[in-house]
Amino acid sequence: MPYIEVNNDFAGIRGLMAFRPETAEPLGALANILLRDTEGLSPAERELIATHVSYLNDCYYCHNSHGEIACYYLDGNRELVDQVRKNYEQAPISAKLKALLAIAGKVQQSGRSVTPADIGRARQEGATDKDIHDTVLIAAAFCLFNRYVDGLGATTPTDLSTYAPRAKQIAERGYGNHIFSSPQPA
Amino acid sequence: MPYIEVNNDFAGIRGLMAFRPETAEPLGALANILLRDTEGLSPAERELIATHVSYLNDCYYCHNSHGEIACYYLDGNRELVDQVRKNYEQAPISAKLKALLAIAGKVQQSGRSVTPADIGRARQEGATDKDIHDTVLIAAAFCLFNRYVDGLGATTPTDLSTYAPRAKQIAERGYGNHIFSSPQPA
Repeated sequence: MPYIEVNNDFAGIRGLMAFRPETAEPLGALANILLRDTEGLSPAERELIATHVSYLNDCYYCHNSHGEIACYYLDGNRELVDQVRKNYEQAPISAKLKALLAIAGKVQQSGRSVTPADIGRARQEGATDKDIHDTVLIAAAFCLFNRYVDGLGATTPTDLSTYAPRAKQIAERGYGNHIFSSPQPA
Repeated sequence: MPYIEVNNDFAGIRGLMAFRPETAEPLGALANILLRDTEGLSPAERELIATHVSYLNDCYYCHNSHGEIACYYLDGNRELVDQVRKNYEQAPISAKLKALLAIAGKVQQSGRSVTPADIGRARQEGATDKDIHDTVLIAAAFCLFNRYVDGLGATTPTDLSTYAPRAKQIAERGYGNHIFSSPQPA
């Protein structure tokens, strides 16, 4: 049960966004830019960073929601998504993405945990200023989203099969207002 | 020295926002709504919550920037701002604001740290659903802003006297694009 009275047709962050449309708009715009930009990092890589940070923050709703979106982009490779959640250094992903996930993990702890050596590793693997910027801001943004969802006790569907239809909708149509158009479990 | 190449005329988050205007826009819009809304919590109370969370996150740039804005609203009462940073339970503020600061402090740790007892205390002191929502989202948003600033090593002016002119400008004109119009230390 959420701590505030939200429309219970909408699970997770959607219920909170329906409660306060004024803040929902910039939050949705931020997610669209950070997670769907195709320049530099791919949308799949961006969703993997979001999934990893949400997993570190123990936000069940977010790491499953964004894990499913990453999975959609990765042709259903749920095993890869799960490796990135828990043990990305061993996952079959690029050395650049591993270095960026290391930065994201530091940001999850604190902005002050990021070191010049973390940045140096990412640059050595080919990361640009924009890749580094977007990685830090995606990780920071999920430190917001995860706390927003769990700090207000948002409804979290536990049936994992309910996350895939919503993931498909977001992957195809973005983080727009349509997320309120069809009440669904996840 | 920031970890990415930003316009060094702009300190703190302003340099990062100038680097990536696409994300600067929703971040500025979010700050304007959350920190300048006058319904329920006052702008001074909102800035005090932001200052306290930024202090807990050890973000020197943010807790001084927003502390100065709170101070501007509070007719220069810097001592009160400093009490809220470090020891708000003893500060001469309302019991409602103390209960909301307690929630904000929990959110700073993790969304999952907030308990029904924390929410119950705030309600008992008169907090509405909107007050609780905005407190959680302000605290979560500063877990983003603080990590964004420190995670990219943004320039942090150490001369505290440089923060007041910027604070006055933001208090009077909001978090709009004018923050890029006049390069100033803070």
